Amino acid sequence: METLLLGPDDVSENAHTAELIVAVEEAFSAYQRGDVQMPAKSYIDLPEYNGDFRSMPAYMRADDWDAAGIKWVNVHPDNPDDHRLPTVLGTMVYSEPENAFPLSIMDGTTLTRERTGAAAAVATDHLAVADATSLGIVGAGVQSYTQLEAISEVRPIEEVVVSDLREEAVSKFVARFDEEFDVREGSVAEAAGCDVLSTVTPVEHPIVPADAVGEHTHVNAMGADAPGKHELDDDLLANATIVIDDYEQCTHSGEINVPWSQGLLSDEDIYGELGAIVTDDLAGRGEPGGPEGVTVFDSTGLAIQDVAAAHVVYEQASANDNGTPFELVDTRV
Amino acid sequence: METLLLGPDDVSENAHTAELIVAVEEAFSAYQRGDVQMPAKSYIDLPEYNGDFRSMPAYMRADDWDAAGIKWVNVHPDNPDDHRLPTVLGTMVYSEPENAFPLSIMDGTTLTRERTGAAAAVATDHLAVADATSLGIVGAGVQSYTQLEAISEVRPIEEVVVSDLREEAVSKFVARFDEEFDVREGSVAEAAGCDVLSTVTPVEHPIVPADAVGEHTHVNAMGADAPGKHELDDDLLANATIVIDDYEQCTHSGEINVPWSQGLLSDEDIYGELGAIVTDDLAGRGEPGGPEGVTVFDSTGLAIQDVAAAHVVYEQASANDNGTPFELVDTRV
Repeated sequence: METLLLGPDDVSENAHTAELIVAVEEAFSAYQRGDVQMPAKSYIDLPEYNGDFRSMPAYMRADDWDAAGIKWVNVHPDNPDDHRLPTVLGTMVYSEPENAFPLSIMDGTTLTRERTGAAAAVATDHLAVADATSLGIVGAGVQSYTQLEAISEVRPIEEVVVSDLREEAVSKFVARFDEEFDVREGSVAEAAGCDVLSTVTPVEHPIVPADAVGEHTHVNAMGADAPGKHELDDDLLANATIVIDDYEQCTHSGEINVPWSQGLLSDEDIYGELGAIVTDDLAGRGEPGGPEGVTVFDSTGLAIQDVAAAHVVYEQASANDNGTPFELVDTRV
Repeated sequence: METLLLGPDDVSENAHTAELIVAVEEAFSAYQRGDVQMPAKSYIDLPEYNGDFRSMPAYMRADDWDAAGIKWVNVHPDNPDDHRLPTVLGTMVYSEPENAFPLSIMDGTTLTRERTGAAAAVATDHLAVADATSLGIVGAGVQSYTQLEAISEVRPIEEVVVSDLREEAVSKFVARFDEEFDVREGSVAEAAGCDVLSTVTPVEHPIVPADAVGEHTHVNAMGADAPGKHELDDDLLANATIVIDDYEQCTHSGEINVPWSQGLLSDEDIYGELGAIVTDDLAGRGEPGGPEGVTVFDSTGLAIQDVAAAHVVYEQASANDNGTPFELVDTRV
């Protein structure tokens, strides 16, 4: 039996955005129902290399399918300067739950970007105003592209304001989307004034002030992924309706981790988990009792998002005869 | 950058036994010194498929090299009957610790057999009599081959007695080794009377009685890998010098787990961990104060053995230009 190898282009081409959003929404829904198994991320810290490895195993059961796998990923901030490699590299092993055969090994770096965009889209779909036409993006790095691609699937985005100190990154982003959207460079405040804002930076000191966001802006806070990191001003969070992806992960390393650990935010300030909104256990915007002002989605990234996205990519790639089949494991009984 | 794909034959051909034994001994030594990071195995239980997945991440530092990676492995006992697949399938991702690049994806099933044989050889080297010439093997399945291959590297094995109820498995084993050794089928008692005994079965009720082993037999108890499994009679364990690979794993799911959890064995009955013997913190057989009678090595299998073995296989395969290079992950900065 052969395992399907899917490199960066294979993952990218088969990560159909609309399907990814459905699958990732099903992952949040399964999480809320308890139809997942997701052991805590485990870390290997390597201070001698200023880096770490993380293992993210998961199983989830949706209505019509289930999926299992593990993402092995790292954070090595010196990589770009010292090795001309990205800070984060990922490898995904996607397995058949029934017999554990490794159906596919795929580029987990590309997969992460795709599923992260899809998670922002799910949150946006339930928390942004229905007629949101403008999207601000703070941070024009590798994660910014799938934010626009996915969010524009769930809202009629026309105007895009992108903010980043790196001119080159902004130009590249604008060039990529210039034909499809009214996209321009702008200040953080201009980006934050849009109907939807996605922040995708690794900063440790907030760069989005409270008074910059619009009256009903929905913010996808995607950047924080470690203790000490946060992108949004404390006051912005304190006055917003906060939705998280997972309580343990967000209080440990999400957007809220710093003010929460300082006691500036408490559990009462958290509206709930995205899974509860997706399953209608909690009201989204526009529903009776739902949030009306500024909303913030604190995304840390769950292993079930990876297996859900891997499911879409593998099924698509198989249907399209994409990828490279390889006899990887010994299946002799 | 390309990741080196190593299938079953690639792993097998590049898992040079003598080097593997050295590397696995270095892994035990690093473990004893504290030069490893090995988060607890995490489990995903899937009762609906009568199976589970296990993730085994690890990092280790030897004197001249270090290694990191993760093995994603499962136990699905219905696989042979229902899917014509092995009960256990493994996929190993072997990564460069300094920048986390996935150097190789390799068949973890073959790797597991190789590193398990190497661990038995390390224990045998420190615990068997110096002139051990006979080896008994109980269980002629997939794990039995590397037991003989590795143990015969550290002791002058001439006579081999293999015991298994499955005639076909015994014949296959005998045919494989007939030219190199005086190998024959025998009873469990005949196998247990040898200088060295390796048990590699999945039984839940002991099959090796206490009176069957020789006066100074060293036993490698390799089979037990889950709560409830054990291969050796309680009395055999009670009267032997017991060496374990890891306290948590052995008391949870190793050979000693059943009598230990029943209170028939206590912590005082455990001589120590193999790492302590390898580093001379504890005496091995033949050293002052070392064990003299029956010794038992309780092996559960550590993630550091996998990364140590993967290191040898990857280095050899690279040197020999073996394997299939593949652009698996996006390395654009």
